[in-house]
Amino acid sequence: MFNVPEWAYEFHGHKCPFMPIGYRMGTVAMEKLGVGKAHNHEIFIFSEMGIGHPQGCLQDGLQSSTAATFGKGQMHKLFYGKIAATFYHQKKGAVRIALRNEFSDSLAPLEFFVYRKKGVEPSEIPAEVSKEIIDKVLEASNEDLFKIEMLPDYKYTPVKGSFNKASCEICGEYVFERYLRMKDGKKVCIPCSERDEQEKTFYIPK
Amino acid sequence: MFNVPEWAYEFHGHKCPFMPIGYRMGTVAMEKLGVGKAHNHEIFIFSEMGIGHPQGCLQDGLQSSTAATFGKGQMHKLFYGKIAATFYHQKKGAVRIALRNEFSDSLAPLEFFVYRKKGVEPSEIPAEVSKEIIDKVLEASNEDLFKIEMLPDYKYTPVKGSFNKASCEICGEYVFERYLRMKDGKKVCIPCSERDEQEKTFYIPK
Repeated sequence: MFNVPEWAYEFHGHKCPFMPIGYRMGTVAMEKLGVGKAHNHEIFIFSEMGIGHPQGCLQDGLQSSTAATFGKGQMHKLFYGKIAATFYHQKKGAVRIALRNEFSDSLAPLEFFVYRKKGVEPSEIPAEVSKEIIDKVLEASNEDLFKIEMLPDYKYTPVKGSFNKASCEICGEYVFERYLRMKDGKKVCIPCSERDEQEKTFYIPK
Repeated sequence: MFNVPEWAYEFHGHKCPFMPIGYRMGTVAMEKLGVGKAHNHEIFIFSEMGIGHPQGCLQDGLQSSTAATFGKGQMHKLFYGKIAATFYHQKKGAVRIALRNEFSDSLAPLEFFVYRKKGVEPSEIPAEVSKEIIDKVLEASNEDLFKIEMLPDYKYTPVKGSFNKASCEICGEYVFERYLRMKDGKKVCIPCSERDEQEKTFYIPK
């Protein structure tokens, strides 16, 4: 049976089936790419998940197994509402892994989802009910779980970083240079520019 | 001295000062709001950090101490390039915490940053050099570290979720309903719609 370290559940906050599915997905991705955990910025993940749907927990498993974390800027969402992710390593290329519909369907009748659809939060679900569904995830084969496609032509260039920063001339807080704006001749942060709503600045990978 | 559990470094992938700063920031936020860790979806974090700058590692500390994780949809970026975050709890309100410029300045001369500015990745920096700067973070007082502001009028309504999904009629993969699109009379996923570039769908909190 596959082993997910206890700290990954501690990080995630509760026991559910999708964090371990993500942990396994990240592990398979590293095997396919022939790489280890991303201690620094070696792996980037483009998750196809979005908002307002379940199963996002999978992404905490991806972060935990690969260390391609949100904090280090290596975990991005594409907002497609799909249970899949592309894993990119600058020297080893890319692989897309999707959870199989059939495996997803095989989980649906389990008691865990009876609780979830009644609105019971995962941490309130009886331990034996969570264990049943997690064991099913840990006992499945990689083939049962995943559709895997190598993407030899995939390219991604991470944003070039800079340490430059300055204090906002209104609030005084430090702002990294990319996000400084000008207002009435002053260098300011976006909230102090009071133009936040009109000129939302965000980041779309690729 | 403040204690950050070893698993949080394991999750993050390396030893650096900003993950522990974030761990402490999340801990202070929970104290100020009078709440514990978010086992399910109790806390939402709006990080003011962005892309292409250092110190994002702080956000892995936020995730680790609060369990308001990216995977569970509780960790969002506002792309302001600032070292601050707002923590929102539906029953307890909100608090904004910013790292003090003075503390940030006090770290800058340490040897850790001599390595970083030469492009040495954190996992390659000698252990005693990392320890020096992490100890400085763990020994500081909350007052040394943070500017804290309660936000009594802050409101945030998380997106309403739905379990509904259907298979894309082109690729066959499951898609959550919010992200299904119509093309030539078929229900399709965004990549199969081939309109991905023209109609980027993403999420801006608030």
